[in-house]
Amino acid sequence: MVAQLHDFLIDRYLLEALREDVNEEDVSTNAVIGDERGHVFLIAKEEGVIAGLGVFERVFTLLDESIAVDLLKKDGDHVSTGDTVATIRGPIKVLLTGERVALNFLQRMSGIATYTEKIARALEGTKTDIVDTRKTTPNFRIFEKYAVRVGGGKNHRYNLTDGVMLKDNHIAAAGSVEKAVALAREYAPFVRKIEVEVETIDMVEEAVAAKADIIMLDNMSPEEIKEAVRIIDGRALIELSGNIDEANIDAYKDLGADVISSGALTHSAPVLDLSMKGLVADDAD
Amino acid sequence: MVAQLHDFLIDRYLLEALREDVNEEDVSTNAVIGDERGHVFLIAKEEGVIAGLGVFERVFTLLDESIAVDLLKKDGDHVSTGDTVATIRGPIKVLLTGERVALNFLQRMSGIATYTEKIARALEGTKTDIVDTRKTTPNFRIFEKYAVRVGGGKNHRYNLTDGVMLKDNHIAAAGSVEKAVALAREYAPFVRKIEVEVETIDMVEEAVAAKADIIMLDNMSPEEIKEAVRIIDGRALIELSGNIDEANIDAYKDLGADVISSGALTHSAPVLDLSMKGLVADDAD
Amino acid sequence: MVAQLHDFLIDRYLLEALREDVNEEDVSTNAVIGDERGHVFLIAKEEGVIAGLGVFERVFTLLDESIAVDLLKKDGDHVSTGDTVATIRGPIKVLLTGERVALNFLQRMSGIATYTEKIARALEGTKTDIVDTRKTTPNFRIFEKYAVRVGGGKNHRYNLTDGVMLKDNHIAAAGSVEKAVALAREYAPFVRKIEVEVETIDMVEEAVAAKADIIMLDNMSPEEIKEAVRIIDGRALIELSGNIDEANIDAYKDLGADVISSGALTHSAPVLDLSMKGLVADDAD
Amino acid sequence: MVAQLHDFLIDRYLLEALREDVNEEDVSTNAVIGDERGHVFLIAKEEGVIAGLGVFERVFTLLDESIAVDLLKKDGDHVSTGDTVATIRGPIKVLLTGERVALNFLQRMSGIATYTEKIARALEGTKTDIVDTRKTTPNFRIFEKYAVRVGGGKNHRYNLTDGVMLKDNHIAAAGSVEKAVALAREYAPFVRKIEVEVETIDMVEEAVAAKADIIMLDNMSPEEIKEAVRIIDGRALIELSGNIDEANIDAYKDLGADVISSGALTHSAPVLDLSMKGLVADDAD
Amino acid sequence: MVAQLHDFLIDRYLLEALREDVNEEDVSTNAVIGDERGHVFLIAKEEGVIAGLGVFERVFTLLDESIAVDLLKKDGDHVSTGDTVATIRGPIKVLLTGERVALNFLQRMSGIATYTEKIARALEGTKTDIVDTRKTTPNFRIFEKYAVRVGGGKNHRYNLTDGVMLKDNHIAAAGSVEKAVALAREYAPFVRKIEVEVETIDMVEEAVAAKADIIMLDNMSPEEIKEAVRIIDGRALIELSGNIDEANIDAYKDLGADVISSGALTHSAPVLDLSMKGLVADDAD
Amino acid sequence: MVAQLHDFLIDRYLLEALREDVNEEDVSTNAVIGDERGHVFLIAKEEGVIAGLGVFERVFTLLDESIAVDLLKKDGDHVSTGDTVATIRGPIKVLLTGERVALNFLQRMSGIATYTEKIARALEGTKTDIVDTRKTTPNFRIFEKYAVRVGGGKNHRYNLTDGVMLKDNHIAAAGSVEKAVALAREYAPFVRKIEVEVETIDMVEEAVAAKADIIMLDNMSPEEIKEAVRIIDGRALIELSGNIDEANIDAYKDLGADVISSGALTHSAPVLDLSMKGLVADDAD
Repeated sequence: MVAQLHDFLIDRYLLEALREDVNEEDVSTNAVIGDERGHVFLIAKEEGVIAGLGVFERVFTLLDESIAVDLLKKDGDHVSTGDTVATIRGPIKVLLTGERVALNFLQRMSGIATYTEKIARALEGTKTDIVDTRKTTPNFRIFEKYAVRVGGGKNHRYNLTDGVMLKDNHIAAAGSVEKAVALAREYAPFVRKIEVEVETIDMVEEAVAAKADIIMLDNMSPEEIKEAVRIIDGRALIELSGNIDEANIDAYKDLGADVISSGALTHSAPVLDLSMKGLVADDAD
Repeated sequence: MVAQLHDFLIDRYLLEALREDVNEEDVSTNAVIGDERGHVFLIAKEEGVIAGLGVFERVFTLLDESIAVDLLKKDGDHVSTGDTVATIRGPIKVLLTGERVALNFLQRMSGIATYTEKIARALEGTKTDIVDTRKTTPNFRIFEKYAVRVGGGKNHRYNLTDGVMLKDNHIAAAGSVEKAVALAREYAPFVRKIEVEVETIDMVEEAVAAKADIIMLDNMSPEEIKEAVRIIDGRALIELSGNIDEANIDAYKDLGADVISSGALTHSAPVLDLSMKGLVADDAD
Repeated sequence: MVAQLHDFLIDRYLLEALREDVNEEDVSTNAVIGDERGHVFLIAKEEGVIAGLGVFERVFTLLDESIAVDLLKKDGDHVSTGDTVATIRGPIKVLLTGERVALNFLQRMSGIATYTEKIARALEGTKTDIVDTRKTTPNFRIFEKYAVRVGGGKNHRYNLTDGVMLKDNHIAAAGSVEKAVALAREYAPFVRKIEVEVETIDMVEEAVAAKADIIMLDNMSPEEIKEAVRIIDGRALIELSGNIDEANIDAYKDLGADVISSGALTHSAPVLDLSMKGLVADDAD
Repeated sequence: MVAQLHDFLIDRYLLEALREDVNEEDVSTNAVIGDERGHVFLIAKEEGVIAGLGVFERVFTLLDESIAVDLLKKDGDHVSTGDTVATIRGPIKVLLTGERVALNFLQRMSGIATYTEKIARALEGTKTDIVDTRKTTPNFRIFEKYAVRVGGGKNHRYNLTDGVMLKDNHIAAAGSVEKAVALAREYAPFVRKIEVEVETIDMVEEAVAAKADIIMLDNMSPEEIKEAVRIIDGRALIELSGNIDEANIDAYKDLGADVISSGALTHSAPVLDLSMKGLVADDAD
Repeated sequence: MVAQLHDFLIDRYLLEALREDVNEEDVSTNAVIGDERGHVFLIAKEEGVIAGLGVFERVFTLLDESIAVDLLKKDGDHVSTGDTVATIRGPIKVLLTGERVALNFLQRMSGIATYTEKIARALEGTKTDIVDTRKTTPNFRIFEKYAVRVGGGKNHRYNLTDGVMLKDNHIAAAGSVEKAVALAREYAPFVRKIEVEVETIDMVEEAVAAKADIIMLDNMSPEEIKEAVRIIDGRALIELSGNIDEANIDAYKDLGADVISSGALTHSAPVLDLSMKGLVADDAD
Repeated sequence: MVAQLHDFLIDRYLLEALREDVNEEDVSTNAVIGDERGHVFLIAKEEGVIAGLGVFERVFTLLDESIAVDLLKKDGDHVSTGDTVATIRGPIKVLLTGERVALNFLQRMSGIATYTEKIARALEGTKTDIVDTRKTTPNFRIFEKYAVRVGGGKNHRYNLTDGVMLKDNHIAAAGSVEKAVALAREYAPFVRKIEVEVETIDMVEEAVAAKADIIMLDNMSPEEIKEAVRIIDGRALIELSGNIDEANIDAYKDLGADVISSGALTHSAPVLDLSMKGLVADDAD
């Protein structure tokens, strides 16, 4: 199971998001709602994979420590339309004030998990994993990369420090694939793998010769990919890239790549529709 | 024209996004690229409406004050595949290090503007505007609401403080539409309009009687909307809501509403494909 | 009753204020006070309206979670000289360390509530409310606007985004009241009311003709105001402004305005004198 | 002359204050004002001592680097009603957007300088200085203490770390003045002076015997103070405290104290009325 | 005993340090460790003085509120190789994730306390205290100054605001020691002592004549110091400075100075070796 | 050459450090120094490798944009006692106010570079690099890891996210080296190398069998290391760890390891002594 995100890492994003949405107070709610407590249900309004329940819960407890969220599902579970995902109990005021922010996190994260899971399922039985990219929403990456994991995807590098990727401009500046790899191996921490992005079969051969740890085959046709895989022959990990998505994944899934990377996971997954329904006041004692 | 976002409002998001992506350093770039300066082009890879060029530029100048961005388009302009949108000049290292963050902002903002503009165009010649909602990405609202404006949409309230929206739970708690509106008018700053969300024709009549400033017709059919508009008869602004999107907008555009609100503008617009291409070193003096 | 301020909105101000006053440690207290627990009383030293007890309590619990504050009054209550407002129990060290910061919040907020309540009482029985302005202490607005509410006042707009106010410079730039209102109606979110500041009877007529939602009569004499109210005749809300304060409020209270705004509420209210007295150690078990 | 506050110390307060007031954008201004540049005058509307011009200027340059503020006065100068204090040139939009925040700083700071200067003038020719206290507005202390200096006052300790003040509770906990001073001298950094607050002549003698560096005579009558000064006889600095203000300062000014401290300087000084007037567009080239 | 550091002062440093080390997640731990709870021991690997146990504990509770740290030692205690200093109980994942950050604080703080205590012991029986300087690690001063206190040292001024030290450049600018002291006495808050750094016997005499509160004898030989002490004759506190350390302290300890300051305390103390050992899972219920 | 640290990454540390040291103002300097400009020299007081000149310069420009630092050396250069490293020109006040903070960064960074360079030089001609660890000062890692690079060392992983290191507790929890590696390969992003810490020859064989990318030989004797290297035979990178330092490096340098890691680089390097000397005022024009 995917490890939960630490509060000390996410709280600052959650608090900022609450400030962004509340600013001073929820005027509508404070005008008409008293101090009674109640509960409300989190309901799935379409089918998908849920992700971000810990974040959803944390939004409410940051708003009010007395709120209790009973989760009936856990991250990674499939939900169907009408499923009750959680019950949220607490002061009715706060349930209403926090609703939108909590859902804004949960719906986006679940949307990514749902989309990722479709691709991951298409790759089941192959040796190929689906991985994300750095094409994430600014200041939302930790949530998006987590959602990819929940959906059954794997993560590519997290940032520019923790992975080496040599692209066309790097190779041109260095003079050759071989020189670029050599410079990177000299400069980068020894715990980093060196990845080279290639666009032609010639470059594949250069990358293998340069002992790249990972070779990314960028925008190659299935035929070219087969040829590249044959050449590489296990001497490097292989990543496929270039607008591979739900529609065309079948053409790429049995080519022997280690991973297929897809920016769409984090920049094009539609949100999963969820809502909070059925608010009722609890009987006072 | 839409006023540019102030640096003092956006810098903190841009700096955080840079820290999220760079962390310590761009290892790949620092390994192979020297100190020469050069320029690179921002190219549209599909048709759409550009939004966020000021943000794109600011990402680079926060990275390095010596970078100069020459804009060939301005926010709101249409771009076609292959159009050069800007030239970015500066130390090649920094051009590469900042590329992804700058694009992550620009692509999402342009995607929203492009999607919004399609709806706005469909509404041209009617009295109805397209407006956004609070279904925005956490900590990205200022960019998304701006992009809606660039695309020709209007903004709904920015947060829970600056607008009053009485929904089913508020009305139930107050006891009636009339009571809810009275409580809101008593509590809210006098500069706030009072909006009531209604689901039935009976509620429309109650809302008008309560002198609501805005009445939101939630998930009503075109026929119900026509009836509601007739009843309201100019005594309140009218908002339509409920999964109205590109596909079904035609059915709602001539019903006489003041605005149609759409969460899809900010939660489902696909990114606009843009990339940085053609990096070349400048001749040294 | 006025809704309490959310911790997630105020904590950052309270923590900063504690850092401002403590910096490293309370040397005096740490030099002489041991670890025993005790309690101390919050006493009113003059008559007034108390506001900010939740903030006062929160300062102490942010300092030390084991502190318990028993409130004998609630925000909005009148206090008389000598009244015990609260008992604060906890480690004596912390009671002393937090005293000044907690009082600095409470005294200013109570001062504003006390002053506001005097004006509000003078307006009782009229249709006119007293409202605040944006003339607040930088980074203290949320506390000051809350205190105004506690004192029985209403709030004007919270910031430049959430209300439209067209002043002389805006009108001059637009060319006329009519044009300024039209531009504002086109640009501003549809949930915003449009307010126009006028200085002459002619401008009143223009503002009515332009269908301004609110008309602010700036620095007009009672006679001019009467004339303006007659002209407006219910077609816009009416705000009076211009150095109206405790001394001269009687001249303005029966003129039929909806609100009188007063910068003095937040920039000139004297603090309410309160102090912490009677510290005693609790018996150890 | 009083040294200007460092930007690295004040910018975070100024930026937060701008965010507090602008939030997303100045809707009124952005609706009607174009991109032309212009200038506006800062005018004194009453007599007083100006303080905070550097802060006022910095608010504008943080908003827009192209703004130029020409100062005709400097901090500490007396201004009379109608005096032009500064000219501010820049994009008209920004002049309007920043006006309120800049004035909110300047008016409060000038109000404190004006009030302080009255007391300081009353003490001229005596050996006694007027000093402030820690009764400052939370998160505004750096501005208030600076304004006291500009007005000719001196500062007491800045926070709980950088001065030792032994009050009744400290003395009671230690058992005697002598023991409290001994504990403080043992615990506090050797660069700290030890101040003791005394309420009786007996305590004065104990404080002298304990070799306190400073003795605060709290709420003593002029006669008691004379007696205390005679006893202390130069062996400690003498501070007078306890509701000494503009009204009763004369009774205390010739008693031989080193300083009189007054919370009123920072919690009760009324703002100085200043405004921005006469906005005109500059001719385009 | 030394008062514990307040959470509101240190939490921001601890949280930043956790973010610095964890960034997104502890991949190694999350890959292999499940949700079971356990405990681990904090063990001394060399002899020294422990300091920072409260900080060590707080790192873990900020990571996970359910962690319990049982301290077998307290700050200031001597530990020997092999001593168990604490037991830490909680989710095994979190014990592993927080280990390095918690130790990084504790080892540095204990190293400083250990080093300080050696010097302090050498000074026992004399009238001279060992004090620190401002030569601290940026953003780590509060921890280092605390550790000095734990080790039996005293603190010099905390920052540039809370102490006055007139060095060669200040004296040169003022024109003489006398003028520099006069200017400082006029400018500085009256609660500040005035310290003068002197390098010659002539300057000692000038400093005494100027009534400096503290005279720092910089880089003087023991003979010169004796002469200076004789001249000063109790009329000022005396500080010795200039590369006095463990090796040469004996030559300076009986000269009659009040304090010896040493940058080495905070810039050259080696860390104390401590580690977390013996992790075992707790039996499930 | 080592790439400079980005301002957007370090400014927040530098600004916090300035606030830590200045708090409100440099009282001593502001009391006696006027507004004249001048220059001062940065002088090496012992032999070593300089690192952090960019940080040193940035501290001053954050204090005052008008300061100009002329660097006579660059990071990585050797300096000898008495060498002038830089000239700093600007307002004399600011030169004095910023001196300590700027030096606190530079001295620590140069100390680390100097220490690292000694080890690196001892390893010259071998295939083995010296690398750092995560035993860094909290909130100072980016400066320390940079200094290691400047001194000719390499960096190990930056944090817990960007490298996988399986230690005894991980292996015990997984059940075997093989299982631990398998779990890590399954869980970690595919761009991460898997490192295993081993303490016995048996474990070496298990790690090789499990196809670990890196094997850390922890606290092994030179003989054991030779045996391990023979077994591994190029099938994994080899790291040596365990109190290897300047004193005993010769025994480890020719054993064929890829890297030797040393916590001492960042936790025990003494500072390099540098100071600012020779302040003179510039002639006014």
